Amino acid sequence: EASKDEAKAKGPQSKGKESHKYQLKTPKGTRDFDPDQMAVREKVFDVIKGCFKRHGAVTIDTPVFELKDTLTGKYGEDSKLIYDLADQGGELLSLRYDLTVPFARYVAMNKIKAIKRYHIARVYRRDNPAMTRGRFREFYQCDFDIAGEYDPMIPDAECVKVVAEILTRLELGDFVVKVNHRKLLDGIFAACGVPQEKFRPVCSAVDKLDKLEWSDVKKEMVAEKGIGADVADKIGSYVRQSGGRDFAETLASDEKLMAQSAAKAGLDDMKLLLEYCDVFGILDKVSFDLSLARGLDYYTGVIYEAVLTGSDEQLKAHKRGETVGVGSVAGGGRYDGLVGMFDAKKKKVPCVGVSLGIERIFSIIEAKAHASGKKIRTTETQVLVASGQKHLLTERMKLCNELWGHGIKTEMFYKRNPKLLNQFQFCEDQQVPFLLIIGEDELKGGFVKLRNAITREEEEIKREDLAEEIKKKLLNSD
Amino acid sequence: EASKDEAKAKGPQSKGKESHKYQLKTPKGTRDFDPDQMAVREKVFDVIKGCFKRHGAVTIDTPVFELKDTLTGKYGEDSKLIYDLADQGGELLSLRYDLTVPFARYVAMNKIKAIKRYHIARVYRRDNPAMTRGRFREFYQCDFDIAGEYDPMIPDAECVKVVAEILTRLELGDFVVKVNHRKLLDGIFAACGVPQEKFRPVCSAVDKLDKLEWSDVKKEMVAEKGIGADVADKIGSYVRQSGGRDFAETLASDEKLMAQSAAKAGLDDMKLLLEYCDVFGILDKVSFDLSLARGLDYYTGVIYEAVLTGSDEQLKAHKRGETVGVGSVAGGGRYDGLVGMFDAKKKKVPCVGVSLGIERIFSIIEAKAHASGKKIRTTETQVLVASGQKHLLTERMKLCNELWGHGIKTEMFYKRNPKLLNQFQFCEDQQVPFLLIIGEDELKGGFVKLRNAITREEEEIKREDLAEEIKKKLLNSD
Repeated sequence: EASKDEAKAKGPQSKGKESHKYQLKTPKGTRDFDPDQMAVREKVFDVIKGCFKRHGAVTIDTPVFELKDTLTGKYGEDSKLIYDLADQGGELLSLRYDLTVPFARYVAMNKIKAIKRYHIARVYRRDNPAMTRGRFREFYQCDFDIAGEYDPMIPDAECVKVVAEILTRLELGDFVVKVNHRKLLDGIFAACGVPQEKFRPVCSAVDKLDKLEWSDVKKEMVAEKGIGADVADKIGSYVRQSGGRDFAETLASDEKLMAQSAAKAGLDDMKLLLEYCDVFGILDKVSFDLSLARGLDYYTGVIYEAVLTGSDEQLKAHKRGETVGVGSVAGGGRYDGLVGMFDAKKKKVPCVGVSLGIERIFSIIEAKAHASGKKIRTTETQVLVASGQKHLLTERMKLCNELWGHGIKTEMFYKRNPKLLNQFQFCEDQQVPFLLIIGEDELKGGFVKLRNAITREEEEIKREDLAEEIKKKLLNSD
Repeated sequence: EASKDEAKAKGPQSKGKESHKYQLKTPKGTRDFDPDQMAVREKVFDVIKGCFKRHGAVTIDTPVFELKDTLTGKYGEDSKLIYDLADQGGELLSLRYDLTVPFARYVAMNKIKAIKRYHIARVYRRDNPAMTRGRFREFYQCDFDIAGEYDPMIPDAECVKVVAEILTRLELGDFVVKVNHRKLLDGIFAACGVPQEKFRPVCSAVDKLDKLEWSDVKKEMVAEKGIGADVADKIGSYVRQSGGRDFAETLASDEKLMAQSAAKAGLDDMKLLLEYCDVFGILDKVSFDLSLARGLDYYTGVIYEAVLTGSDEQLKAHKRGETVGVGSVAGGGRYDGLVGMFDAKKKKVPCVGVSLGIERIFSIIEAKAHASGKKIRTTETQVLVASGQKHLLTERMKLCNELWGHGIKTEMFYKRNPKLLNQFQFCEDQQVPFLLIIGEDELKGGFVKLRNAITREEEEIKREDLAEEIKKKLLNSD
């Protein structure tokens, strides 16, 4: 085992038998983004950032790693998925697991009382990757959170609105934002006779209802969590229900449930949330779903999950045998206790937020782009300075220099004497709209030839009018 | 020692004596970016990206960590600064140390023959941090690289041009881009009588000339590297010279030096580079400086370093007692062998590139912004929907919803009945240009009041014309 490690440590440049062991790859569960993918990624980020800014959020950034202690005790069972850094002397560090805990640490550390911020960054989980379905070990989260003491459900409703706006603008097909409330769930568990110390285990069993049949969830409750079959059945009669504002009224008339103060408080919140979603014009996208439980420990109130329902046939586009257009793309909720865990005086700052998972969205948009057959532009180059004649390298450089000085995106071939046909081909491949062609005649006559790469029309332009003429044409061609 | 670790592992939520040990901080050498700093950062990135795109570069991204083997044997002595991840089973990983090695790995892995790409991302070095001078353990690099077989010095000159354009546009005061050539240095060492196996150690001694006196560098050569004092003196007579195209001609007439084929090849390159820099109009920013050596092992040709000379008094602005406006902000060079190290058949892809270090540039621009006393806007909010009357929460929500639907950046207070004065104050603090005010009268009359937060002028607008009127005003106020 030790000698194996040693061979590994020698690395790719080591000679001899062991050198074949180096694999030319990215780490498991990670990937490179090539220029095509980056172009898609930037467009998606622009939509998301645009929405966050429309709602008045500032942005912050935090280090990719935190003190190990900062992450300890925040994620429950999922803590085993945290990446630790090697102990090379000094502080013990871990890669961030989400953006929520670093945000809470930031709020506590800077003694912030109120902030609405977005944060788009990568997080790290040593999970079992399923890359074709968009599950990676390194992946982006796009978080929008509102911290501060406010009146009930107003920021909570805006978080639902933000998710609905983004999913609508990205044209991902039909979706539903499931909403529920931790306090209501606790009230249901209490009303059904679950002892308090089993609320979280039962909650995590309920959370599996999106993947498992009720009979399997019940089995887990009874066999693994030690809940009576009759109690489980009572839970089952609640958590398989969902609906809208009517459903909230039905629950409100359940006297046994309303006798639980947590259930009453949770349901009052939900009624308000649904009212505000109605005002925001998104009630048809919202489902009050008692089966929604969310895995993370730190939620204390409203919880959300946005799910693509894959109704659009085009979006069901299969990618290497997997359906990409269906599944969860965002989640979140209220976490009023997390900031207080970092404050020396345990001073709380209530928070609510949502987190969009971007990898599945990328997969969908990439699949759509691929299906459409359109080639994605990966540069913004506007002009290629070209020539078919020899010894004009420095003339081409001068022209590039002039156009760069005017802010025009310009390229040239890095060859002394490139072939004109190759330069034409480049513009076609790269969708560069204009070629600027020079030769001895042009040089002597004090003009240049401008060729439209699409229409193939050519015209002569005076050397001194060059930049202004190109700018005019670019404006018209946009 | 073990019990100490145990106490640490308990983390912030553990009660008892040890709990005070948790420190609320970011890891050593790292920092959060607050909304003010993010606003500056985005502006700087926009300038840099704008330049990279003007020169036709695509962009890629790579994982934040690589297989440990990918980084092994690439950085010479600096390898000790690499962050390793803990061995939690599976692959051995390290955080990326720069963007150049991941780029070379990407080019080899995807069998790319030619690419011009930029990459803006964070890299990680377990170095001794000097945060006031902009030296961090987690920091951004902005890399521009051209890979492919081209004619000599054309892409190399464009890299110098790119650095000069960026530093000029960022208005960082005077700067100089030092240029030199590894082959020329090797030729000088050979001509002075240094044995070949000592080229790299002597080179790394020369590299210290920007911080040490010649006498100290000589001492290192003689005492530590085993170079004769006469040989060192000969080296010293070369490496303390710098100049422009004339200086290149002077060196060309040095027959002893030109007898070394490496020196001849290097100088031919330098003459061409200086000629092209002249064509690009940046010769006055370029210094052919024989003392420039660069630390990294992988350079094989031209090397660069851009240095701020701090001539601008305002930029000398002291920040916590440190001068921020002086020092190295970019470096790079040609590395024709790196991609081949990753290729099974050792197939080479020649590369040249530059890397801008952004942290020092941030420090300067932050210091400038601070000195100017101007408040940086951290949101782009255009309208605050406000009211001084009670029971109008859902009316305010409806108005927000309408404006969001028209793409107008809109906020409201998350209170049922906020005070009008607080809403005025918010617009002043946050530089929000417009308030949209509603009350019972406005509701009944079917209009709203629009208040210009700067001029304090108010006017009544019909409810149905609202979005269009605001859009018009925003256009005019830009």
